Amino acid sequence: MSLTNATPLQVAQAARLGSRELAVLSTEQRNAALTAIHQALAEGKDEVLAANAKDLEAAHKAAEGGTLSQSLVKRLDLGKKGKYEDMLQGILDVRDLEDPINKTTSRTLLDDNLTLSRVTCPIGVLLIIFEARPEVIANISALAIKSGNAAILKGGRESNHSFAAIASIISQALSTTSVPSDCLQLVQTHDVIKELLSLDTYIDLCIPRGGNKLVRFVKDSTSIPVLGHADGICTALLLSDYPSDKATKIIVDAKVSYPAGCNALEQLLVDTPALTTNLPTVATALLSHGVSLRCDAPSLTSLQSSLPPHLAALLQPSTPSDYTTEFLDLTLAIKTISTIPDAITHVNAHSSHHTDAILTLDAATATRYLSAIDSSSVYWNTSTRMADGQRYGFGTEVGISTNKIHSRGPVGLDGLTIYKWVLVGDAQVSAEYGAGGKKWKHERLPVEEDEGVARDEEEREVLRRFREGKRAAA
Amino acid sequence: MSLTNATPLQVAQAARLGSRELAVLSTEQRNAALTAIHQALAEGKDEVLAANAKDLEAAHKAAEGGTLSQSLVKRLDLGKKGKYEDMLQGILDVRDLEDPINKTTSRTLLDDNLTLSRVTCPIGVLLIIFEARPEVIANISALAIKSGNAAILKGGRESNHSFAAIASIISQALSTTSVPSDCLQLVQTHDVIKELLSLDTYIDLCIPRGGNKLVRFVKDSTSIPVLGHADGICTALLLSDYPSDKATKIIVDAKVSYPAGCNALEQLLVDTPALTTNLPTVATALLSHGVSLRCDAPSLTSLQSSLPPHLAALLQPSTPSDYTTEFLDLTLAIKTISTIPDAITHVNAHSSHHTDAILTLDAATATRYLSAIDSSSVYWNTSTRMADGQRYGFGTEVGISTNKIHSRGPVGLDGLTIYKWVLVGDAQVSAEYGAGGKKWKHERLPVEEDEGVARDEEEREVLRRFREGKRAAA
Repeated sequence: MSLTNATPLQVAQAARLGSRELAVLSTEQRNAALTAIHQALAEGKDEVLAANAKDLEAAHKAAEGGTLSQSLVKRLDLGKKGKYEDMLQGILDVRDLEDPINKTTSRTLLDDNLTLSRVTCPIGVLLIIFEARPEVIANISALAIKSGNAAILKGGRESNHSFAAIASIISQALSTTSVPSDCLQLVQTHDVIKELLSLDTYIDLCIPRGGNKLVRFVKDSTSIPVLGHADGICTALLLSDYPSDKATKIIVDAKVSYPAGCNALEQLLVDTPALTTNLPTVATALLSHGVSLRCDAPSLTSLQSSLPPHLAALLQPSTPSDYTTEFLDLTLAIKTISTIPDAITHVNAHSSHHTDAILTLDAATATRYLSAIDSSSVYWNTSTRMADGQRYGFGTEVGISTNKIHSRGPVGLDGLTIYKWVLVGDAQVSAEYGAGGKKWKHERLPVEEDEGVARDEEEREVLRRFREGKRAAA
Repeated sequence: MSLTNATPLQVAQAARLGSRELAVLSTEQRNAALTAIHQALAEGKDEVLAANAKDLEAAHKAAEGGTLSQSLVKRLDLGKKGKYEDMLQGILDVRDLEDPINKTTSRTLLDDNLTLSRVTCPIGVLLIIFEARPEVIANISALAIKSGNAAILKGGRESNHSFAAIASIISQALSTTSVPSDCLQLVQTHDVIKELLSLDTYIDLCIPRGGNKLVRFVKDSTSIPVLGHADGICTALLLSDYPSDKATKIIVDAKVSYPAGCNALEQLLVDTPALTTNLPTVATALLSHGVSLRCDAPSLTSLQSSLPPHLAALLQPSTPSDYTTEFLDLTLAIKTISTIPDAITHVNAHSSHHTDAILTLDAATATRYLSAIDSSSVYWNTSTRMADGQRYGFGTEVGISTNKIHSRGPVGLDGLTIYKWVLVGDAQVSAEYGAGGKKWKHERLPVEEDEGVARDEEEREVLRRFREGKRAAA
């Protein structure tokens, strides 16, 4: 970990060189570095919290002066109960995940003694730009080292003291390991983001972790690929056949459990019959949770007549901009749709392609809908709030991507890897093949590493016969 | 296929809408469209060749006037023996490949009745910008439809008549199929590339097919992800232990078989002992094939003393720029390296991360080298010219990518797909899980589609026992 005042170019070049050394370290060497970082940060807790206290003091003053939001001050606080321990545990959790690199994911025999393998490897150099949260530095350092990537970290200036303390501890810890310290570069100097974002020769992937404004700024300022999402406009389509109790449970969770989350529900679509079957129950529950409902004309008219007057009085008419807004608070836009294709067209045009759900008992409609909606996560009968790396079983997440290439939805360690093609031969050359020459074999070989995969037709047959036997016995 | 004078925005919006309809068509519907296109182009051969003749006539005039290169004229010619038939066969080849979309590539049981699947799907809308070759239009149309993507095609103006003829035939053919004709948009109006490249709301991936200048221009002009490579600076490291005959065979193929290819060899690195073991034989063969050798000081001195005077006289000293140049002709830069780490550093800094080879009998050195070199394809004892989708067994290729994310090396149909996360539940919600609540199961489920994969520990055990039995019997 270099806590550096070097130029962005020097930082990026050093990270690039370091990344090549890191890429060839063994699983054990990378894991040992994470153990060392964990131990050093556990021992250095008082030191980090003392530095964090300085940041907090300044932040409190800024908040009083109105130049910093209270929620940002809260996010700065590493001393909050369990937060430091969670950060430490996160490092061990990442260490104990399966190694995402050096995995052979396909093998093809091109010809005798000419074998092509696809092997996972690190991407190279990551640029992580994040806002206040100082624990991100430990989290990202762990993810980067585990996946064999170098990382340049640029944090918000509000957490400068905390970063410096954490960086110096990680730096000392790394110096006892095989991971070159250039692999983690903490940049604290001001106004370097623009220059870092221009260094596409050295930086392979940029991950902004923060609000919509930060992500948009980054996306608009660089030709480096950016992994992430700017908006989280999630929708749910409620059909009239879905039981009111389940609909209420799902929609209340999606809207109320964490309205500031990118996976929170912002738009509820309903088919016309739902206006009288399940929507009234759902709307009543939402209103009782303090949710403002912005209704289109049909849903407004229908709910005004079906809800008791004290609730009906809370309903608001929607405006077109309500269907392009990420509210991030207790507000929900409601829209009535006549047909499923209308719903599909609306969602594909108005959602941010993050997470969209359908609630119905009709399997055929649901299947068609899941296929037609162009979003990173599509759900049937569950809450959009499920979109999260931990919930998906990734152990940890780098963020949630609405990109259309590379990695989509919650991104785990796999999203920080790519692959290379490894071809091993015995002096075969291209000119020997093709018209009149040798023929390509192109025989799919088993990926030896996975012992649960049948390696030839004989082994497939063994599996088949075992299954038949079991079926016959049952 | 719309042959259109609409604005780029209208084109992109229409393609986007069409892409959503195309995405939900069945394998059979997409394949039927390819059959229809194949038949129509077979029947329309005379019409297309007549249009092509007009382009050729104009091109010949331009070539005489010196405003067009002869190689471009050659590439325009669809009447060359077998070229039209190859184009037709290519459509059927793509049709008969495995469907790359709607494949479930992982399944996880998050909890009872709550199953997460990762399902492959099209990317959306592709923008293909290509130079003269008119057959690309059929090739790309086939790839796009097969992978469920809409495509906007912009070709060079030299082939306008050919494009118009092919487009009108494909358009008529599509009108008899389920594929909306808006899914393929041929843009012929001038000066629209810049505007198309700005439409990142509607276009998901840009694939430039053409020379280095085109690719650089596209990469520098858009925030849409670009798949491709600008340069093909491929290297080989020859170690002294590798037999001269095999070394010669490989290096002559890599340099001579198609020097204009992006996978042709541009730099030969040799270790110091190789200067006297195998390099003289290799150099003699290269010189006899008319290759200009640009040698660094040690290799120049050594070869001058070991080669016969008439060959030694052909050797040239290299300059630093020879190690950053894609020659694309019969020129090769030679560099002597003292250690393997020096070679690794040189290649990672000077190759274009396309394809790099090592020639040696030493497995440990080769393995280390393949792991340390940061390129899309890394080869041991074979020619860099092997880097090609057909040779890799992909059936066809979209291009070769030196990107660090999404798709790397030769890109087949898989490179035109991404995935979505499909979560199916029964009203489970996020707030039920976590501290004090329900526990996630996160149980990896088999991907049912592949019957050769063990679905549980019991089946893995069956495979293990079968293998042990075979080993014991052997």
